[in-house]
Amino acid sequence: MTGNRAVAYKSPGVVEVIDIDYPSFELKDGPGVNPANVGRKVPHGVILKTVTTNICGSDQHMVRGRTTAPANLVLGHEITGEVVETGPDVEFIKVGDIVSVPFNISCGRCRNCKERKTGICLNVNPDRPGSAYGYVDMGGWVGGQAEYVLVPYADWNLLKFPDRDQALEKIMDLTMLSDIFPTGFHGAVTAGVGVGSTVYVAGAGPVGLAAAVSAQLLGAAVVIVGDLNEDRLAQARSFGCETVNLTKGEPQDQIEQILGVPEVDAGVDAVGFEARGHGKDASSEAPATVLNSLMTVTAAGGAMGIPGLYVTGDPGAADAAAQTGNLSLRLGLGWAKSLSFTTGQCPVMKYNRQLMMAILHDKVQIAKAVNAKAISLEDAPRGYAEFDAGAATKYVLNPNEYVKS
Amino acid sequence: MTGNRAVAYKSPGVVEVIDIDYPSFELKDGPGVNPANVGRKVPHGVILKTVTTNICGSDQHMVRGRTTAPANLVLGHEITGEVVETGPDVEFIKVGDIVSVPFNISCGRCRNCKERKTGICLNVNPDRPGSAYGYVDMGGWVGGQAEYVLVPYADWNLLKFPDRDQALEKIMDLTMLSDIFPTGFHGAVTAGVGVGSTVYVAGAGPVGLAAAVSAQLLGAAVVIVGDLNEDRLAQARSFGCETVNLTKGEPQDQIEQILGVPEVDAGVDAVGFEARGHGKDASSEAPATVLNSLMTVTAAGGAMGIPGLYVTGDPGAADAAAQTGNLSLRLGLGWAKSLSFTTGQCPVMKYNRQLMMAILHDKVQIAKAVNAKAISLEDAPRGYAEFDAGAATKYVLNPNEYVKS
Amino acid sequence: MTGNRAVAYKSPGVVEVIDIDYPSFELKDGPGVNPANVGRKVPHGVILKTVTTNICGSDQHMVRGRTTAPANLVLGHEITGEVVETGPDVEFIKVGDIVSVPFNISCGRCRNCKERKTGICLNVNPDRPGSAYGYVDMGGWVGGQAEYVLVPYADWNLLKFPDRDQALEKIMDLTMLSDIFPTGFHGAVTAGVGVGSTVYVAGAGPVGLAAAVSAQLLGAAVVIVGDLNEDRLAQARSFGCETVNLTKGEPQDQIEQILGVPEVDAGVDAVGFEARGHGKDASSEAPATVLNSLMTVTAAGGAMGIPGLYVTGDPGAADAAAQTGNLSLRLGLGWAKSLSFTTGQCPVMKYNRQLMMAILHDKVQIAKAVNAKAISLEDAPRGYAEFDAGAATKYVLNPNEYVKS
Amino acid sequence: MTGNRAVAYKSPGVVEVIDIDYPSFELKDGPGVNPANVGRKVPHGVILKTVTTNICGSDQHMVRGRTTAPANLVLGHEITGEVVETGPDVEFIKVGDIVSVPFNISCGRCRNCKERKTGICLNVNPDRPGSAYGYVDMGGWVGGQAEYVLVPYADWNLLKFPDRDQALEKIMDLTMLSDIFPTGFHGAVTAGVGVGSTVYVAGAGPVGLAAAVSAQLLGAAVVIVGDLNEDRLAQARSFGCETVNLTKGEPQDQIEQILGVPEVDAGVDAVGFEARGHGKDASSEAPATVLNSLMTVTAAGGAMGIPGLYVTGDPGAADAAAQTGNLSLRLGLGWAKSLSFTTGQCPVMKYNRQLMMAILHDKVQIAKAVNAKAISLEDAPRGYAEFDAGAATKYVLNPNEYVKS
Repeated sequence: MTGNRAVAYKSPGVVEVIDIDYPSFELKDGPGVNPANVGRKVPHGVILKTVTTNICGSDQHMVRGRTTAPANLVLGHEITGEVVETGPDVEFIKVGDIVSVPFNISCGRCRNCKERKTGICLNVNPDRPGSAYGYVDMGGWVGGQAEYVLVPYADWNLLKFPDRDQALEKIMDLTMLSDIFPTGFHGAVTAGVGVGSTVYVAGAGPVGLAAAVSAQLLGAAVVIVGDLNEDRLAQARSFGCETVNLTKGEPQDQIEQILGVPEVDAGVDAVGFEARGHGKDASSEAPATVLNSLMTVTAAGGAMGIPGLYVTGDPGAADAAAQTGNLSLRLGLGWAKSLSFTTGQCPVMKYNRQLMMAILHDKVQIAKAVNAKAISLEDAPRGYAEFDAGAATKYVLNPNEYVKS
Repeated sequence: MTGNRAVAYKSPGVVEVIDIDYPSFELKDGPGVNPANVGRKVPHGVILKTVTTNICGSDQHMVRGRTTAPANLVLGHEITGEVVETGPDVEFIKVGDIVSVPFNISCGRCRNCKERKTGICLNVNPDRPGSAYGYVDMGGWVGGQAEYVLVPYADWNLLKFPDRDQALEKIMDLTMLSDIFPTGFHGAVTAGVGVGSTVYVAGAGPVGLAAAVSAQLLGAAVVIVGDLNEDRLAQARSFGCETVNLTKGEPQDQIEQILGVPEVDAGVDAVGFEARGHGKDASSEAPATVLNSLMTVTAAGGAMGIPGLYVTGDPGAADAAAQTGNLSLRLGLGWAKSLSFTTGQCPVMKYNRQLMMAILHDKVQIAKAVNAKAISLEDAPRGYAEFDAGAATKYVLNPNEYVKS
Repeated sequence: MTGNRAVAYKSPGVVEVIDIDYPSFELKDGPGVNPANVGRKVPHGVILKTVTTNICGSDQHMVRGRTTAPANLVLGHEITGEVVETGPDVEFIKVGDIVSVPFNISCGRCRNCKERKTGICLNVNPDRPGSAYGYVDMGGWVGGQAEYVLVPYADWNLLKFPDRDQALEKIMDLTMLSDIFPTGFHGAVTAGVGVGSTVYVAGAGPVGLAAAVSAQLLGAAVVIVGDLNEDRLAQARSFGCETVNLTKGEPQDQIEQILGVPEVDAGVDAVGFEARGHGKDASSEAPATVLNSLMTVTAAGGAMGIPGLYVTGDPGAADAAAQTGNLSLRLGLGWAKSLSFTTGQCPVMKYNRQLMMAILHDKVQIAKAVNAKAISLEDAPRGYAEFDAGAATKYVLNPNEYVKS
Repeated sequence: MTGNRAVAYKSPGVVEVIDIDYPSFELKDGPGVNPANVGRKVPHGVILKTVTTNICGSDQHMVRGRTTAPANLVLGHEITGEVVETGPDVEFIKVGDIVSVPFNISCGRCRNCKERKTGICLNVNPDRPGSAYGYVDMGGWVGGQAEYVLVPYADWNLLKFPDRDQALEKIMDLTMLSDIFPTGFHGAVTAGVGVGSTVYVAGAGPVGLAAAVSAQLLGAAVVIVGDLNEDRLAQARSFGCETVNLTKGEPQDQIEQILGVPEVDAGVDAVGFEARGHGKDASSEAPATVLNSLMTVTAAGGAMGIPGLYVTGDPGAADAAAQTGNLSLRLGLGWAKSLSFTTGQCPVMKYNRQLMMAILHDKVQIAKAVNAKAISLEDAPRGYAEFDAGAATKYVLNPNEYVKS
């Protein structure tokens, strides 16, 4: 019997590697599994031996205790794997395939999936549209920061890489297809970025850097990244971005120094609800900071892509409004400037195939841009801690030693 | 020398018909004219003898004293006219043409106009992108609730009706092309309304009714209109809409009774910043009510069109945040549902020609839908008062008796 | 053991109702089944008791002997049914559901399906992308002009009607969702039809009439339909279209009489490769007639939607070029006018849900527009003959007496 | 009085540099001027001192005697200049501005211009929608291969470069904004090229190379260029394209060697009506070759962008059909593959600003890609001859020595 080591949330600030069951073609009861999902049969699923699985900034919300995640919830929604077993309803995916798993779980059979809105699938989460692996309030699908993981609706969800050897050679880039590369790309696309655009990306974490790379790939003329963390800004500069250090104040002045005008065509919020103030206020949380700042720096008629996560409930928020996901937004300004706003989970399947093509044909170096670093599964707790401390690094877990050092 | 009677704002709650100068091809100093616009030459303009000019809900913000509009500001941005003089640079518009004037003034020569974003023209308002006739902080172009009015950049701005007699016969419909019909249509389009959509329009004033008619014209399966005013709801029912009376509480329950589900595909905010609460709170202003309610009733993956006006400064608002245009929005909920939002002035020129075609070929009865009623220019003060009191009527001023009773 | 009566092609000009096997969850060998598809397991399928199944103009190409269809090929790709059995992998569709079957068979698991291009699914037809029931060279899926039929990938393909009684009440409208209503709608959409458009539809057969109704539903200002058959033109006039009788010559003159200009914004080809000449040449085939005529009457900058079928091989064509699907097109004219062209099968799933909503909420009367008439399965040969003779009727087979007279 | 040297077509195969009048703000009679345009006043125009003006492949059609161009027609529609005089109606363009002139002349005041369809302006060419400088049957606007040239509707048409010194430094790139860069970009965009696409561009002349560069800028994964001319293919390889030598036969086999499959996502026709056969037939004209080949190599569901020129009349064509712009196209194949097609002049103003941004921020090296080479105005005849002989060079005329060697 194969074992299965996995990274679990234990308590605020604490993650541990624990032993869990090897997956079967059924969603069994466990920490965070929605009762309505317990016992759900998954004949359309496959079991993956995990090739890579990344630590994500949105995992940190749980780890920091900002959610209602229960102890022993297995984490991990950024998964690349090798198919080792296929359910009886799987027709096109085969054992041995190396595949990327979109972080949003979707059925391929509901209205939303048929409309390519896989971030809000109606059939996988009894609580609300949309789901993800290893995440609180998302139905209870077991996380993939583990040696093995079950993926439902495999023919629909999985992106197969065309060649095994090529895939393993470029695995540190391809591993970003499960979440942050499409998520950043979605942020750029929904911000209206195109050839010749000027772009401001708020946040130089992995999603922000992915949005910046995506903007470049889309032909942007100038990509400016803002953050409070100088290491992360240095990372942004390493691949040709301009940067704005927000400890020095609001971004518009620094943007004007770069562009000659204090506004950009397109704005991306890659920060989300744990935003902090700018300038001297930077130490305290101010969840509306980024959105309000983007309304100032995005030119009239522009668009704002908002891949950064905003939540419906945040018990740890500083004030009562934020605890229920209410933000004080300068909508009057936004309206006067005819801005538009796109929120929500990235529907990964809309973008992952084309981004895979860009990687396989060497048109983009996403691993380098986000400073990807492979560590062992057992080192996950250290990875979480360093990432939380602000390391300009994207941590990639390597549970089965597919990634060679 | 021709005189020129015009409707002017005098003080909070007071409008009067006054005598002003007959227009010339120059923007002269006067109430509300931006100093940088004083003396501006308008060889590209035409002088119109006003055929019709409508009272708009956004005029009411000024009349109620909710803005910094100065005394004697001539009102009116919904203008249809007959060309009586053309400036030397006008090439295609001719004397005798009956034309519709888009309420947003635009130059046809800047980047935004070239991109069809005529609501945020860069060359007509020294203060910010975008302008309108007879409106505070919009550069000072004289309003059109007058016998005669100057229209700049006439070849670009004006929509010529193909036949004079046909135009005058359908004038009560065509007069809505200057603002509320395109504005409502823009609200529906940006909310993603298409064939088969279910739609909720918040607000049964003229723009809300125009949005509802537009949704029907776009093929919507069900159009539901919500308001606190039963007369206006009756007006909505008169052309086939379902209605929700918001004095009974939040709209989702009543929507569920109509559709079987408490959500719609598309939401339109046709209320704006002077929103009131729902249910028992309906008497007091609660500027975020409509937007937050729409986030509840718009289904995941849907879009919200926001033609309702939100402002950057509202000295008369109930609280300090609203006074600077800040609203407490449930963005966490919106994000969880992957909603998108489009704000801003409708770029009228994007839609007015096609809507004119629909009117001329009897595909839509916009005048009937909004209960248009022609009154004389001298009766304008009464029209303002009745409209402010909640009459389910769209008042059309008839300064030169083109409209026959 | 249940029997299964079905309509089969026998020889040029001859169709017969024959006995075939009751479906099983496997694609068995038979007339026209691609060897690579023989024995294919269909655990994802359902068996339908046919509610309605329509005779389509594209069936006539086979019946007339214009294809390589083998004897005993069971016809029928326009299917609405009641689910009587579900395969083991079907999760959401249930026995008793009344469902519409998109004529294009698709897997919901390939790149094209994931991109909503279900007309060119990569996994259902070994010969080329795209498939359909009961059609030559489409992989061999058994036609649905039968009492019972197998539908593969049921969770993906099927559109479930929300209420059984309501569905049966509106069944003569809903039966058009399997093909001609979406196909006509696709023609209108790809021709760029929108609110206020002027539209010319070439062909007043069922697809042409469906395109005309669709154009109205999309808000067109004027819809003009052209044909050589006066009965069909009368049918078009019955729901508000203008018409052009092509036996009187090229359409542009008659269009000019209607519109004042000889051109329209949008052109739809609802005829296809069996086109005849206009005017005095109308009796002989001239396969490029419609496309060339549309290039003349579509205004510069317009688009042409081409739902009419053009084939890669037509052994019965008048000349060698046409036999291999080559047409002599006035592309020089099209280019000078900056026209664009969209061809191919309609991807039904992109449109059928929204069109169902329009039907269920009484926004469109498609059955009346195409003059739908229910006849028994045994009367199918008569229906084929009358339709081929030019009857202005859409024949709906009623194999199991769901349709009450 | 300033003189004005200009390049004129004299007779088939012969161009000469002649003396013409210095421009005035009126379109005077002359070779090729439409009588209805003679005497047209141009108060909205500016006079440019030509900075650069390029020889274009479409000029060659005239020079080869394939059109009805009259003797002494002044050539040149690819113009960049310095404003030396402004008409009285010009408001925003100033003397001293360095500007790019879109090759399509448009008024900015008609329906099509307002819809951004500047390639088919209704007000500049009495014969048909759309116009260009120095071109037969385009209204008679004098060509720009001259020291000075008149540009009408200057505020609308001209793209001003933000900084004079920067503009002159990058002038060899910026000069491509008047035509071939936007034209190639339009070809790529309308072929549906996006991030990760595989693309085949037929033709390695300047437009084909510009389309290839554009596809790269849009994020294409692989760009393959086909031609019969090995020098031009070498030029394509110089900036990272794959190539296909069409003297070796149809492109699909060579494409399969490159991609592993014989099809691409997107196809661009950068050749037009003077196409030759592939393989051994390459020496004779076969005007449908490129379009039919593209239908073979473009994958089902793909799109074809067709910037290559097709004409309504070609007296020099090999057969009667081609003489009237009729081509024998495999539309049956195109239909079976659900292809779409976009033809026509590129509406330059839709793209030139964003492409300028890409140039100014060093995101693209278009001059290098097309091997731009500046020559004197007096050397134009030599440039025409070398270009016609197949030189892999884009010739840029330098009439006033702005370009420093």
